[in-house]
Amino acid sequence: MAIEVLVLLLALAGVLPAESKFMVYNTSAGIDPNKLNVHLVPHTHDDVGWLKTVDQYYVGSNNSIQGACVQNVLDSLVPALLADKNRKFIYVEQAFFQRWWRDQSETVQSIVKQLVHSGQLELINGGMCMHDEAAPHYIDMIDQTTLGHRFIKEEFGVTPRIGWQIDPFGHSAVQAYLLSAEVGFDSLFFGRIDYQDRAKRKNEKSLEVIWQASKSLGSSAQIFAGAFPENYEPPKGFYFEVNDNSPIVQDDINLFDYNVQERVNDFVAAAVAQANITRTNHIMWTMGTDFKYQYAYTWFRQMDKLIHYVNQDGRVNALYSTPSIYTDAKYATNRAWPLKTGDYFPYADRANAYWTGYFTSRPALKRYVRIMSGYYLAARQLEFFKGKTTSGPNTDSLADALAIAQHHDAVTGTEKQHVANDYAKRLAIGYTEAEALVASSLACLVESTANKECGNPTTKFQQCPLMNISYCPPSETVLSNGKDLVLVVYNPLGWKREDIVQIPVMTDDISVHDSEGKDVESQLIPITEAYHKLRSYHVKAYLGRNAGGTPKYWLVFPVSVPALGFSTYSISRAQGTVISAGARPTKSSVYTVQRGENSVVNIGQGNLKVAFSAEGKITHYINKWRTESVEQSYSFYAGSNGTEKEPQKSGAYIFRPNGSFPISPAKQTPLTVVHGSIVDELHEQINSWIYQVTRLNKLKEHIEVEFIVGPIPIDDGIGKEVATQISTTVKSKKTFYTDSSGRDFIERIRDYRTDWNLEVNQPAAGNYYPINLGIFMKDEEKEFSILVDRSVGGSSLSDGQIELMLHRRLLLDDSRGVAEALNETVCVENKCTGLIIQGKYYFRFDQLGEGARWRRSYGQEIYSPLLLAFAEEDKNHWRNSRTTSFSGIDSSYTLPENVVILTLQELDDGNVLLRLAHLYEVGDHKELSVMTSVELKKLFPGKKIGKATEMSLSANQERAEMESKRLVWKVEGSAEEKETKVSRGGPVDPVKLEVELAPMEIRTFIIELVQLNNLFDA
Amino acid sequence: MAIEVLVLLLALAGVLPAESKFMVYNTSAGIDPNKLNVHLVPHTHDDVGWLKTVDQYYVGSNNSIQGACVQNVLDSLVPALLADKNRKFIYVEQAFFQRWWRDQSETVQSIVKQLVHSGQLELINGGMCMHDEAAPHYIDMIDQTTLGHRFIKEEFGVTPRIGWQIDPFGHSAVQAYLLSAEVGFDSLFFGRIDYQDRAKRKNEKSLEVIWQASKSLGSSAQIFAGAFPENYEPPKGFYFEVNDNSPIVQDDINLFDYNVQERVNDFVAAAVAQANITRTNHIMWTMGTDFKYQYAYTWFRQMDKLIHYVNQDGRVNALYSTPSIYTDAKYATNRAWPLKTGDYFPYADRANAYWTGYFTSRPALKRYVRIMSGYYLAARQLEFFKGKTTSGPNTDSLADALAIAQHHDAVTGTEKQHVANDYAKRLAIGYTEAEALVASSLACLVESTANKECGNPTTKFQQCPLMNISYCPPSETVLSNGKDLVLVVYNPLGWKREDIVQIPVMTDDISVHDSEGKDVESQLIPITEAYHKLRSYHVKAYLGRNAGGTPKYWLVFPVSVPALGFSTYSISRAQGTVISAGARPTKSSVYTVQRGENSVVNIGQGNLKVAFSAEGKITHYINKWRTESVEQSYSFYAGSNGTEKEPQKSGAYIFRPNGSFPISPAKQTPLTVVHGSIVDELHEQINSWIYQVTRLNKLKEHIEVEFIVGPIPIDDGIGKEVATQISTTVKSKKTFYTDSSGRDFIERIRDYRTDWNLEVNQPAAGNYYPINLGIFMKDEEKEFSILVDRSVGGSSLSDGQIELMLHRRLLLDDSRGVAEALNETVCVENKCTGLIIQGKYYFRFDQLGEGARWRRSYGQEIYSPLLLAFAEEDKNHWRNSRTTSFSGIDSSYTLPENVVILTLQELDDGNVLLRLAHLYEVGDHKELSVMTSVELKKLFPGKKIGKATEMSLSANQERAEMESKRLVWKVEGSAEEKETKVSRGGPVDPVKLEVELAPMEIRTFIIELVQLNNLFDA
Repeated sequence: MAIEVLVLLLALAGVLPAESKFMVYNTSAGIDPNKLNVHLVPHTHDDVGWLKTVDQYYVGSNNSIQGACVQNVLDSLVPALLADKNRKFIYVEQAFFQRWWRDQSETVQSIVKQLVHSGQLELINGGMCMHDEAAPHYIDMIDQTTLGHRFIKEEFGVTPRIGWQIDPFGHSAVQAYLLSAEVGFDSLFFGRIDYQDRAKRKNEKSLEVIWQASKSLGSSAQIFAGAFPENYEPPKGFYFEVNDNSPIVQDDINLFDYNVQERVNDFVAAAVAQANITRTNHIMWTMGTDFKYQYAYTWFRQMDKLIHYVNQDGRVNALYSTPSIYTDAKYATNRAWPLKTGDYFPYADRANAYWTGYFTSRPALKRYVRIMSGYYLAARQLEFFKGKTTSGPNTDSLADALAIAQHHDAVTGTEKQHVANDYAKRLAIGYTEAEALVASSLACLVESTANKECGNPTTKFQQCPLMNISYCPPSETVLSNGKDLVLVVYNPLGWKREDIVQIPVMTDDISVHDSEGKDVESQLIPITEAYHKLRSYHVKAYLGRNAGGTPKYWLVFPVSVPALGFSTYSISRAQGTVISAGARPTKSSVYTVQRGENSVVNIGQGNLKVAFSAEGKITHYINKWRTESVEQSYSFYAGSNGTEKEPQKSGAYIFRPNGSFPISPAKQTPLTVVHGSIVDELHEQINSWIYQVTRLNKLKEHIEVEFIVGPIPIDDGIGKEVATQISTTVKSKKTFYTDSSGRDFIERIRDYRTDWNLEVNQPAAGNYYPINLGIFMKDEEKEFSILVDRSVGGSSLSDGQIELMLHRRLLLDDSRGVAEALNETVCVENKCTGLIIQGKYYFRFDQLGEGARWRRSYGQEIYSPLLLAFAEEDKNHWRNSRTTSFSGIDSSYTLPENVVILTLQELDDGNVLLRLAHLYEVGDHKELSVMTSVELKKLFPGKKIGKATEMSLSANQERAEMESKRLVWKVEGSAEEKETKVSRGGPVDPVKLEVELAPMEIRTFIIELVQLNNLFDA
Repeated sequence: MAIEVLVLLLALAGVLPAESKFMVYNTSAGIDPNKLNVHLVPHTHDDVGWLKTVDQYYVGSNNSIQGACVQNVLDSLVPALLADKNRKFIYVEQAFFQRWWRDQSETVQSIVKQLVHSGQLELINGGMCMHDEAAPHYIDMIDQTTLGHRFIKEEFGVTPRIGWQIDPFGHSAVQAYLLSAEVGFDSLFFGRIDYQDRAKRKNEKSLEVIWQASKSLGSSAQIFAGAFPENYEPPKGFYFEVNDNSPIVQDDINLFDYNVQERVNDFVAAAVAQANITRTNHIMWTMGTDFKYQYAYTWFRQMDKLIHYVNQDGRVNALYSTPSIYTDAKYATNRAWPLKTGDYFPYADRANAYWTGYFTSRPALKRYVRIMSGYYLAARQLEFFKGKTTSGPNTDSLADALAIAQHHDAVTGTEKQHVANDYAKRLAIGYTEAEALVASSLACLVESTANKECGNPTTKFQQCPLMNISYCPPSETVLSNGKDLVLVVYNPLGWKREDIVQIPVMTDDISVHDSEGKDVESQLIPITEAYHKLRSYHVKAYLGRNAGGTPKYWLVFPVSVPALGFSTYSISRAQGTVISAGARPTKSSVYTVQRGENSVVNIGQGNLKVAFSAEGKITHYINKWRTESVEQSYSFYAGSNGTEKEPQKSGAYIFRPNGSFPISPAKQTPLTVVHGSIVDELHEQINSWIYQVTRLNKLKEHIEVEFIVGPIPIDDGIGKEVATQISTTVKSKKTFYTDSSGRDFIERIRDYRTDWNLEVNQPAAGNYYPINLGIFMKDEEKEFSILVDRSVGGSSLSDGQIELMLHRRLLLDDSRGVAEALNETVCVENKCTGLIIQGKYYFRFDQLGEGARWRRSYGQEIYSPLLLAFAEEDKNHWRNSRTTSFSGIDSSYTLPENVVILTLQELDDGNVLLRLAHLYEVGDHKELSVMTSVELKKLFPGKKIGKATEMSLSANQERAEMESKRLVWKVEGSAEEKETKVSRGGPVDPVKLEVELAPMEIRTFIIELVQLNNLFDA
């Protein structure tokens, strides 16, 4: 290769000075303080799955659905940036970026590193995906952001500065304070806020605000936040993708249609229009949209020309920019900004178009994601205990699948069916590997002793991911030949835990013992026909095989498990052996009550009892301090098919009901009452497609409602959205509280918005909010709380009442792009039926001021259920050869009640990532909403902490560095308002290693363990 | 710029060896003689105007009509080719390539030159556009090809090897033998042949043939010609444009949907299917289609993978190729090929879809192109006589406009209206400059004398491009004050010419003299109301101004003009001056005859007389040797609106009539008869929108029919296609003859094709053929010929009859992409009316064997009308101070009657491009279809020929070199058939400089004139 060719190539890339006949555009403009600055921000918005799967988007397959190929974007971007050092680009979605990065040669990687370091290519937002803000749990948001941020840190040594949530359908407080301020972002930008809100903000120039989203952390976690005037696209007429329609700048006087002055005028007009609704002389143009820059040059060529000619014109100043440059420019103006609290939910893009349907859409996927989220947390703990290995199964694949599933068209349920299947497939693959890791880690732990660490453990553990449909092959085994069923019960929480486990068994001829051989009280509950059907149909559908012999009973028994540890139980065949009666399960007494009989049914063996009317409705909730009237019922909304005047349909995104219809229980079906020593249940067939179990167990003072809903009938041509209502006497005065991404609770007032005078078009849909953890209401005496097992939509549509939407099946598309009806089915041998979902919610009354304790602590138990692992072996041999009890933390220690471990994870370099979270908000609870502290040393028994470095939430920079860089923005209004004292835990003494946590504080550490002793030395 | 960055950039361009983690595809495959070779030919088909204008296509504007940007194609192509030296591409349309080339820096130009020299980028076909083969005149085809070929030669030093007429709608003999074999192509490829023909050829593996398209030149001008099996696109499923739907090759095992084996299987299956209809083990895949490769990398990435994996698979051999490589591979097989004669007209892509409408579509544009073509020929002669200058007006812009207008969606009439306007605009701009050049050249010539060459001539000549609508400001002047109207009449033909000129004048008070002051006989013909309307409406419409005072008369008088030269005439105000009666024009006698009166009208002052019945129909054609019965009439076809079963509509491309309806002359309107000393006319208002003049002048023995047709009424909702029929007693036995692109005549037989058994679906449309020069039929006694003034469709639908389609106005689109109805209008102040066309055709009877003489020689006069230039000056002063007569050739010399100068043009380097054409085919005429010769020296009086180099037709290589490279193909069949003796002119003796021309031979020379003496020395 001759040097001439080198030079030619460089010239081609535009690197060498251009020749005379080659038009050179002056693109070097920076900020001009005396002009209106139009920040052109070249970007592409690449959904990590939506109409196509993430891989299809990456490689550009399945283009008949949508023409999109992210590989093209990144491939074509690099030479386009090289060609002119003034050009800039931001890239957002790391799931794509990492796919591309893996494909690149080291030389290309070097070029890209240089582009990143020079600031031409800025990686912002930086999570694996642009997560949704309504359906994901905050732990998932943190995890998926961390995955992206740490990759960026490792490969490029940089930390993203900007939150870029341009497409999610409303914006959560947690996004603002936790996933933005606490990860060290300097600003947060987004496109979608309520159309009424937007109109007011345009008028008041308040699209850009200082957002203090956390009551508890206040100004210490505020962020500069900008909502775009329209969406995240360029102004009309400035789209420059290959084949786009916008007029290009035709500046070749040798050709026809020369239009430079016209285009400059268009540009200036659009800039001035935007300046009129924006504070300061800086406006941002988002130059790109979904999957654009497939041939990046097409955009840059036009932007080069626009910058050149607009600046030649001189009325405004156009420049290549990034949101960072824009943010710095805003900051440099030293202006004060309006204060924003709360969040931006719900989102409507116009009247009758509330994007509140997706809070519930695809409830099965939402539940799957939530289960995997909890499992991933536990699996990482076990991976740490065992020691992460480079070979063998690990949690990386599940991490990746979960990260992608947080995308705003994934767990949201707003993707096409085949894409939903892809997310589920990824989770299943990730789970399978994590399941093996968990099994091997538990095997390692049970085989380790004080004298021996595990080598290659031989114990084979099985787990039962389909337990929810009573499918659990290891527990369904017919024990014989001196084998017992050994059950290892792992508790991922930092507290000792008393709980009930429930497993399907084939026979009543069994006994239950703990690891010391002591009898364990247990109860057998007949598995009803409803569950048999669920089991056989779905095993066939999902595993492609027959479920085999049907288990007769649920075996339930109480277990006690140490913090971050396990206990062991055994289930044995009673027949032919001499066992004590105490080890034999009691059989439940079961009877039916005919509906309408003039009788009352009472259930409850513990402190809480519930009375039902003979109609099957709960009438009274009786605990030790009072009796409450409660009524629970079902209804459905008919999904609107649109009208001529207002064609908006109810669909995957949008909840637009056309009437609400109560579902009355079928008169003929009897109620089935199950009484036992541990659990009481009331079973009801509400109608042919709703089955409900109301359950109380003697350990807990709350009601568990298990529902099986579906297939929702559609033979009447009407889509239906099924809700349940719980009515109480709480004088809620229109007010209720829903969590923000599973963390802070936010006050909601029916038919009211804090930020503007709400025009009510949709009394139901417009009052729906996302629920990840729970919803509650209160009056001067009491609180009524509901906790959920997945992300769901809900509201309080009348005082004292709470409503949850459980399932949706719709027949029409709602015209937001997905172009499919949300009509989920499950198929066996090509015969498909509507999706049946099964799930639980939990409710409880508390005295005023006490509700938070249950919501926070039991909420954590729901998120992190006990992990059950089964082995088949002689229980005595097991007891003699295995470790039967384990705790990952110092046995003398328990975490404070108000603290939870969000993350305990061994990183690839052997260090440990630890996140501790205070569970309570300021004012939540008089005893628990206080500063608390954790002794780090106690969390690592048998190990010595070499260094504990506090990090940003996404663990990509030291906390101290992050805080030192934080921009201090001015807020409009009184000094008093702004200067609320914020409580934060103090610095960690490197010797004492005690971590203070203020309410709602999450602290992230990277811990170097310098000396790794035997686990059992402590 | 550090060296590292250099290296990085090179790596980015794929020039350096790839790193380990970077997948390397083996794309190096050449031909494998033992396998089926799939030649992947990457290409883009870039229409030089169609739905968008040429410039819009180039810059990528107006994308709402069609997403297409040729700049993207060429920009993205260069790095894609650099990235892998095995990748190849062909580029075709030089109009685009030259636009792009002008924009490139010298460094990029150097890179591209290297790509061309290495064969990675091959420039094929190489004209400015891919000209149509039905509507353009062969002179235009030669000119536009020459323009492209010489550019390629000058910039790259290469000559295109391949004819690539992939999209034109049928293929002409002239394309095959003249524009392919005679420009030195080794093969010719195309996509569109009749569906019946194609089916048979697939079956017989005869899509690839040796095409001997010229009767006269036979095997000396044959070419290997391949029709594609389908069109010019890739096999289904192998389209790889950005956003295309074809499955990409997903070969990343880390991602889902890995599909390498599937895609390899698809590839092999498609290859085998094509191999089954193709001779030899070589097949070509045209990897591209209209305006593809906007991001070239998308195609090459997939082709890289396909070549790699298909060859790994090994069943077939895939390679990057070009039509040249493919042709060489075919040639190397040494196989014999079927012989093809004639042409591929008409083209139907299915039953009822004959693409014969476009032969006539946009008749005004077709006429404009033809006028400009003739003007360009004359203007170049005058440019040469004056001496080409770098400053001042020249013919380049007209050359360019004409070249583009030959595109297969330009003169064809198959473009959108706005694009048709663009072509017309370009012609108008080109004409304006050429008009100025002509004026200054004539000024120069008239001011030059034996003693003085012209410097800056002061004579201002005016010309009258709108003479056809009787608008000619210089002749409409009211002469006074001793000014006379001086008329310089230029004759671009190589023979002395006697002709009639006709100009509008305001008054009868005038006299006409020749340059020696002699009286010239003249005649005044009243200008009728029909022309007044044409004039005022169109001057307003096209010039945006009022036409001014209306001229009363056409002044006609005979002129005599030397070869390649001019004569001068003067028109003076008679009033008040004493002039001889002989100089005063005679007034025509005009009378009307009521239709239906029982009388016969006779016209004709010369050897030919015509009798009309009182219905206005010609009844008899009387010349010296016999009287013929003739009848002429009009009719229209109702354009089909499609039926449910066969939705094909009649449109811009397709002629699909739904019935034919005679147009009977309105009974009420009288016939107007004009008798005069020179010209006789019969005027008829056929109906409210057809006006016709039948004209005879005493110098000529043919009938001239002038028609004004339009606006075609559409208020009945029916599109109409207007035809005229001329019926004779010729016993034509289904047989007639139409010219091929204005050159050779081809025998046509009604309802019959030479190459297959025709299934007749469309008795009219399926028998239509393109006519550029004329159409004739004959029997054992006589020939009947019609010559036309533009390209037009015609046929002989019954024995003895000939039909011409004159005008088309249709209300629906015919679904071939143009997406507009062919409904031309002309607007004045936003009020639009259907287009009126005006034109002429000429007919004549000859004794058998004599017709060719009139067709060839008068055809040439139609193509090259006398060029009139006007000046206003005292005629005596003019006579004394100006040169009044000029001939560009030796005054002792005239070209042989069977030879014409196609090109006499000064090139930029000062050399002269000369093309001489024999006008007759073998067998055309017993005296004229013979070898003839031209004395080159006589063509350049006053100059000395330094060197005359015979060139290929497109003047991009020496003829000898071209002949030495010509591939000699084997033809199937008997040796006798193949070995027909072909006559060709012999080598030119460099001293004698006599050029022999055999029938139909065209010989091209570049002539160096070493000594340029005064023009008038000879």
